Amino acid sequence: MKAALFRAERQIEVGERPDPGIQEPTDVVVRVVRGCVCGSDLWYYRGVNQHKVGSIGHEYIGVVEETGSEVHGLAVGDLVIAPFTYNDGTCPACRHGFPSQCEHGGSFGNGDTDGGQGERVRAPYADATLVKVPGSEFSDAQLASFTALSDVMCTGYHAAISAGVRKGGTVAVVGDGAVGLSAVLSAHLLGASRIIALSRHPARQALAKEFGATDIIEERGAEAVAAVLRLTEGVGVDAALECVGTDQAIATAVGSARAGGMVGTVGFPTYTEFDYKTAFWKNVGVRGGVAPARQYIPELLRAVLDGRINPGKMFDFETDLDHVADAYAAMDERRAIKSLLRISQP
Amino acid sequence: MKAALFRAERQIEVGERPDPGIQEPTDVVVRVVRGCVCGSDLWYYRGVNQHKVGSIGHEYIGVVEETGSEVHGLAVGDLVIAPFTYNDGTCPACRHGFPSQCEHGGSFGNGDTDGGQGERVRAPYADATLVKVPGSEFSDAQLASFTALSDVMCTGYHAAISAGVRKGGTVAVVGDGAVGLSAVLSAHLLGASRIIALSRHPARQALAKEFGATDIIEERGAEAVAAVLRLTEGVGVDAALECVGTDQAIATAVGSARAGGMVGTVGFPTYTEFDYKTAFWKNVGVRGGVAPARQYIPELLRAVLDGRINPGKMFDFETDLDHVADAYAAMDERRAIKSLLRISQP
Repeated sequence: MKAALFRAERQIEVGERPDPGIQEPTDVVVRVVRGCVCGSDLWYYRGVNQHKVGSIGHEYIGVVEETGSEVHGLAVGDLVIAPFTYNDGTCPACRHGFPSQCEHGGSFGNGDTDGGQGERVRAPYADATLVKVPGSEFSDAQLASFTALSDVMCTGYHAAISAGVRKGGTVAVVGDGAVGLSAVLSAHLLGASRIIALSRHPARQALAKEFGATDIIEERGAEAVAAVLRLTEGVGVDAALECVGTDQAIATAVGSARAGGMVGTVGFPTYTEFDYKTAFWKNVGVRGGVAPARQYIPELLRAVLDGRINPGKMFDFETDLDHVADAYAAMDERRAIKSLLRISQP
Repeated sequence: MKAALFRAERQIEVGERPDPGIQEPTDVVVRVVRGCVCGSDLWYYRGVNQHKVGSIGHEYIGVVEETGSEVHGLAVGDLVIAPFTYNDGTCPACRHGFPSQCEHGGSFGNGDTDGGQGERVRAPYADATLVKVPGSEFSDAQLASFTALSDVMCTGYHAAISAGVRKGGTVAVVGDGAVGLSAVLSAHLLGASRIIALSRHPARQALAKEFGATDIIEERGAEAVAAVLRLTEGVGVDAALECVGTDQAIATAVGSARAGGMVGTVGFPTYTEFDYKTAFWKNVGVRGGVAPARQYIPELLRAVLDGRINPGKMFDFETDLDHVADAYAAMDERRAIKSLLRISQP
């Protein structure tokens, strides 16, 4: 089958991988319908992180093509959303709602496992891992939104859930990438009454507003904190959603939260100077990590099907598998917020 | 009036301070009935922290002797519990339930302000600061428990609340000082079904069990984490309560929490190596700070009056104001968990 392959820094190619088949009775094989490029894919693309030469892409939706003998909840022809990690559904972490910490879990597209930027994927523990989309006949916009549930929307939602965003609350979102925009949309879905988005990029500002941001702040760092305090009568926000992972971002989030507030943090942590004591002395909590996407997909899927959220609007660049390198380049050069890959039709 | 005074490292003396009077119309003057020595008092006693030469003691209960013209909720003769910080009750932090972060607040016994280790205290913003104890005719045991609500019990409770301890949950408590023991009692009050106390001190182990600990672990550091995991079938606890503030304590708490669990931290943070990323990668949150004692006193007072908790049992050394230096020495030498000062009778 055809699949995107990582060769080296800035070298994404389309090549051949073996057709996946059922290896365990709990596996299914999925024909990929849509894939996409994650902000975290840019790390190996840019040489910031290592990645094995081989398969890439951990976000996808697709149609079940083949099922193992012990798969009971899925059938050939089902449209499914894959979370970016597979999970057994039975280990303690899974039982506590944190399937991304599954003892027997792993990532799609890690160089060895099939990736979502390819024609087919073997999905382990399929009943526990994949979420069936009910119904049939979906629009392109819906397919895009389902694809966003694979990772990015769940990651933004995790920031909001971790920070305890609730109806009527005040929120600041640090980061205007796809995760930050998802965090804005999540805060809106959860009923926050004031959502302050930090962005200086016109297209992202516009989408943030469309997703529910009530205020936009262009400042950064200490000036952003001062602006949040000005907007909240000196109080700070109930919840600050940190969607970047840098020292400046986490400091801005901690600085923006009110006494007793919470920081929800989902940015890949690259900070080296963040001292939790700065939060302690404000009575600000910090909570987050790798999003338990599988836990969130069902509720977010209902919101998509009901038309309450349209996270697929984040995709502002689309191409096919043959042009996957362009999809990376568009995001790398910040020409695109997020790139969608049309791989097959449902 | 007579009051304990800090002179220099390990020099606590009883001396004279001016009798307090009403300075602001929202003040009251309280005749101190019971005071006590806080674990944090040992920091200046031992020369770890600086303290102004002068008044000391921030935990006390007493009887209202005089009220300012704008005090409406308190009358002469009322028995009151003082939180260790005073607060105006109207600033944003107060309104959000974090009076220890009050914009106009401050500490009792900071060298200048009257201390709880003295005969009388001027209490600012008295309606907002002090909590009246309903009823009359209290036993010595009840007076001791009221005194514990001034700080230590609220601090342990803050660890439990910050970590989201709930009915049926599993808890580990790091630290067997008075705050750790208060955290055990708080977890029990909140309905935790399993409470693992880390202690290697027989008297503290016994009190921890009396307060609701279901298991005692004598190990420390990585071995304590291994023991917590053994006791929880490899899962870790829902809530780890950090009541020490050292690098080892916070690492033990983070290590003991399950994926998605919470660390409630109230130990004065002296850690220098703690990297929040270690919690992030486990999806463990960290929340805490200086306890909002004034916020918690009413609910904890009801629990004391109902006989559901007896935090006064932590006091295993009692003396009078003239012997306040002995009260410090007993705690410094770990002969006492916590020292009570009998200053006057209600």
